Amino acid sequence: MKLHWSPRSPFVRKVMIAAHELGLVDRLTLVRSVAASTKPHVELMKDNPLSKIPALVLDDGTPLYDSRVICGYLDTLHSGQKLFPPEPKARLLAARRQALGDGMLDFLVLWRGETERQHKSEAHIASWTARRAACLAALEKEAPALHQQPFTIGHIAIGCALSYMDFRFAHLPWRPDHPRLAEWHATFAARPSAKATEAVDDSRQPMKPGG
Amino acid sequence: MKLHWSPRSPFVRKVMIAAHELGLVDRLTLVRSVAASTKPHVELMKDNPLSKIPALVLDDGTPLYDSRVICGYLDTLHSGQKLFPPEPKARLLAARRQALGDGMLDFLVLWRGETERQHKSEAHIASWTARRAACLAALEKEAPALHQQPFTIGHIAIGCALSYMDFRFAHLPWRPDHPRLAEWHATFAARPSAKATEAVDDSRQPMKPGG
Repeated sequence: MKLHWSPRSPFVRKVMIAAHELGLVDRLTLVRSVAASTKPHVELMKDNPLSKIPALVLDDGTPLYDSRVICGYLDTLHSGQKLFPPEPKARLLAARRQALGDGMLDFLVLWRGETERQHKSEAHIASWTARRAACLAALEKEAPALHQQPFTIGHIAIGCALSYMDFRFAHLPWRPDHPRLAEWHATFAARPSAKATEAVDDSRQPMKPGG
Repeated sequence: MKLHWSPRSPFVRKVMIAAHELGLVDRLTLVRSVAASTKPHVELMKDNPLSKIPALVLDDGTPLYDSRVICGYLDTLHSGQKLFPPEPKARLLAARRQALGDGMLDFLVLWRGETERQHKSEAHIASWTARRAACLAALEKEAPALHQQPFTIGHIAIGCALSYMDFRFAHLPWRPDHPRLAEWHATFAARPSAKATEAVDDSRQPMKPGG
């Protein structure tokens, strides 16, 4: 299977962590497709007209996107413990947590884009700041449950969102006011799947293009 | 169940169309929660810290978001034809189509927000214009299959995206160059579920708050 991939996309990272957790990494052929918000990617758009990554192309040519759909598909390819639990209540909780992590990433990515604009919208930045605080407060309450319950796609999405804050918003530390969440995140970051997919800042350590 | 709702949110419309299709509308108590991108909604954030609608609160207090998670949950509450087909290939296709419709809505909503900014980013608008063209071209190819195959959550998301273009981007007509898609959309718009949930422009016909 071909995966349109980039080493620093947090949504690609969700897929890569899932693939590592499920023992499926060897089945993915990574194609580096950098999809900037202001630069549509013509080759990528043949598989995903939204010009977004991750996008997976199955061996029969079927395109799959976005990260949720791809992770759900990968979870059907193995017989071990499921990232999307079959039991309805646990499944719903994992899905809601994934939506929270994805939703955080959505506004964090927009926020980062805003900082690169010549004319920044203070109203948007204030709104994202309030949402960030509300999400972190909700997650601090949820941290003990994240610890106790089996690892799911919800854990992956929330872990990726927190790691993305570390990567792109290091000037806004979140750990001091959210000690239980920080503790949970440390267990996430210590997983081999998370270590193998950690984002690296180009400005500090150049990466070769071409995956 | 309590649904944080607004009459013109295309993502809320997805949920309402699903509820109509599945005969579940009577089980929803609608609470009008207007969630502007620059104005976090304090009451809503108690149920969804992302401050986004739709958000559903189950009778036991469990919060559910976003539209995909809610629609997936509603689909478990009935025994008729499923919006998320159980057969794996059909299920995957419906999920990928939902991601396409949702992805279009994501950038269309951003695009509309951009038009309200004092300083507009021409690079972003050019990028969304290119994505819109690519999505419409892909859907024009897919229109015959949309016609032939059973109605799923994918049809709902794509239908809502096209209707949102009519509603908010009427100055950019899409039908002339996409006749097969226009034909399919007409069948979507004619469904009772679509008619019952059509967005109405406040500036032409005021709606009462609190609905």
